[in-house]
Amino acid sequence: MATKPSPRLLTVAAAQMGPNQLADSRESILGRMLKLLTDAASQGAKLVVFPELALTTFFPRHQIDDPVKKAEFFEPESHANPHAIIDSPRVRPLFDKAKELGTDLYLGYAERWTDEHGKVTDYNTTIYYSASGGKVVAKYRKVHLPGTKEPIDDQTGRGVEQQLEKRYFTPGNLGFQAFRAPNLVTGAAKAGSGGTGEPLAKEVEGKGDPIVGMIICNDRRWSEAWRCYGLQGAELILDGYNTTSYAPQYDGTPEEQEAEALFHHRISCQSGSYTNACFSVNTAKCGIEDGGGLIAGTVIYDPNGHVVAESKTKEDELVVATIDLALCRKGKERVFAFEKHRRVEHYGRLLEQVGVQEPPLLH
Amino acid sequence: MATKPSPRLLTVAAAQMGPNQLADSRESILGRMLKLLTDAASQGAKLVVFPELALTTFFPRHQIDDPVKKAEFFEPESHANPHAIIDSPRVRPLFDKAKELGTDLYLGYAERWTDEHGKVTDYNTTIYYSASGGKVVAKYRKVHLPGTKEPIDDQTGRGVEQQLEKRYFTPGNLGFQAFRAPNLVTGAAKAGSGGTGEPLAKEVEGKGDPIVGMIICNDRRWSEAWRCYGLQGAELILDGYNTTSYAPQYDGTPEEQEAEALFHHRISCQSGSYTNACFSVNTAKCGIEDGGGLIAGTVIYDPNGHVVAESKTKEDELVVATIDLALCRKGKERVFAFEKHRRVEHYGRLLEQVGVQEPPLLH
Repeated sequence: MATKPSPRLLTVAAAQMGPNQLADSRESILGRMLKLLTDAASQGAKLVVFPELALTTFFPRHQIDDPVKKAEFFEPESHANPHAIIDSPRVRPLFDKAKELGTDLYLGYAERWTDEHGKVTDYNTTIYYSASGGKVVAKYRKVHLPGTKEPIDDQTGRGVEQQLEKRYFTPGNLGFQAFRAPNLVTGAAKAGSGGTGEPLAKEVEGKGDPIVGMIICNDRRWSEAWRCYGLQGAELILDGYNTTSYAPQYDGTPEEQEAEALFHHRISCQSGSYTNACFSVNTAKCGIEDGGGLIAGTVIYDPNGHVVAESKTKEDELVVATIDLALCRKGKERVFAFEKHRRVEHYGRLLEQVGVQEPPLLH
Repeated sequence: MATKPSPRLLTVAAAQMGPNQLADSRESILGRMLKLLTDAASQGAKLVVFPELALTTFFPRHQIDDPVKKAEFFEPESHANPHAIIDSPRVRPLFDKAKELGTDLYLGYAERWTDEHGKVTDYNTTIYYSASGGKVVAKYRKVHLPGTKEPIDDQTGRGVEQQLEKRYFTPGNLGFQAFRAPNLVTGAAKAGSGGTGEPLAKEVEGKGDPIVGMIICNDRRWSEAWRCYGLQGAELILDGYNTTSYAPQYDGTPEEQEAEALFHHRISCQSGSYTNACFSVNTAKCGIEDGGGLIAGTVIYDPNGHVVAESKTKEDELVVATIDLALCRKGKERVFAFEKHRRVEHYGRLLEQVGVQEPPLLH
């Protein structure tokens, strides 16, 4: 029907990471990340998506109450220096390299935030680092924290794999704010250039900057998160995760539980991408970490819910693909043309209720 | 961890229908439906789910402006007689048989509603008929109408398959109201009975009545619809559909388009079931109807997003399964325990915006 939109090509890399053991030095973890970044750039990637809590082990599986030991896992930031991480000696080499290579980053980490009144709050955070400006252009704090505040008792005698995110972190307070990633889609690939390679007119140029949303791990199971970004025209959702593959307190063999966890991960990312007509880049930290299993399943979905590329291992592995953001147009203009089809007058419960309100019992 | 909930077993049937041609008499269509219903009951089904607009062809593919011809497709109901369909001579044999067999029905039809002021409004409607009381216990009017009001011009020279639901119908005004289906889960299968077959204590009995939600066709692509029911504790979503398998104005061979339409249908129903921890029964009208192709893909999903049973043909076919509603508990109490995890303070856009609001362009 409509004329085909001009391609807006972008090469992205999901930088899957194998386990970060508790005993691993920051230096060794950063070394692996620098290698992934460099390899991705050599394959043409302009954006590298690292996992959730990429710099450390997934420490919410442990109960660590010693404040000194706990602080080791966090990056301090503050009202005065909201993106302090990019100057932190133990992370900075990553940003320097990204800038040098011209490669943007999604990077998940534990953030210890001090506000203007000196109040300290811990978040499960990710930032979007733009190489062209050498700066952070967006921060997202995980909204949907899974797990429990208190450790679960072992009622089965099989042991317990703990998930204590609700103990360590406060739910994100920044909402789901989409943003444009500057200078990511360039030259002929930009919207409106018609593939001629000619420089773009100034008024067209900005339109080529992809609309990006960031989520973290468990957020991907929540359609609310995807839709909040869909309603901002998101073309690309970035998502890092650490997802337990086996918890002995639940039923099923390790193999069965892992298969089910991968299945649910895929359902979530696939439907979020399809129903909001966007690409998604979903990156795992995986393998056996501190004795706890994490699924792999790093995957890039297209706006029709098809797999573009996925990982094959449970180790450090790059999943690289060149995607055409113009493919988002079809879904956004037809089945998921929100302005034509959404009926917000019937969605009141989505905001009025946090939990369930069942219909009354029949007598 | 928790003790296993007692089983709450229910045998359901999705009554997939082959095409209803424009030339088919109501008698012949009703005859096929009566056969499906009788066969389903003989296989133990206590609930039969028919498709959307089950009594007629999918007439929104045609532009029919002659009021007399158009009226033929509708069932008149009114403020004075809101469930007139169950006494309509051309539908009544179905309800009589359902009552005789003790089998509940989901039945999609075109409703011509006259309100107390004499105003007439047409809806794409379904009802839930309870055999035990011999009455309609819930009505749902399709909220998410796809398609266009005006026919699409053929700009390709290949012809156009029209979808004129927005011309024929007004969006539903009843919202997403879950309800309990009375006397559907009986005896030992009811919650709290412990499988002993003993009669249930009065205060426990009502808890066994499943919480049901109804959607129609395109609604299944909208996470808002599923979540509104999930927020009411829905255990069973019923869904009838007519979904175009091929439209010549779009790209792709008939085979390619059909595969993609089935793929998207499945993504939608699967993720809706998983992320709300409920079963869903999704029933097609399918095959070549008036020259237009409709997908089959009738399917029952469980609360983990797995296929319980699905159709194998594009004709009249029963998909019967005995499901255990107690399986909904796990998801509702763990990953999708809404009261623990939802953060409505960040969901404002879901209601504040109908359409897209993009982030500002970068200069």
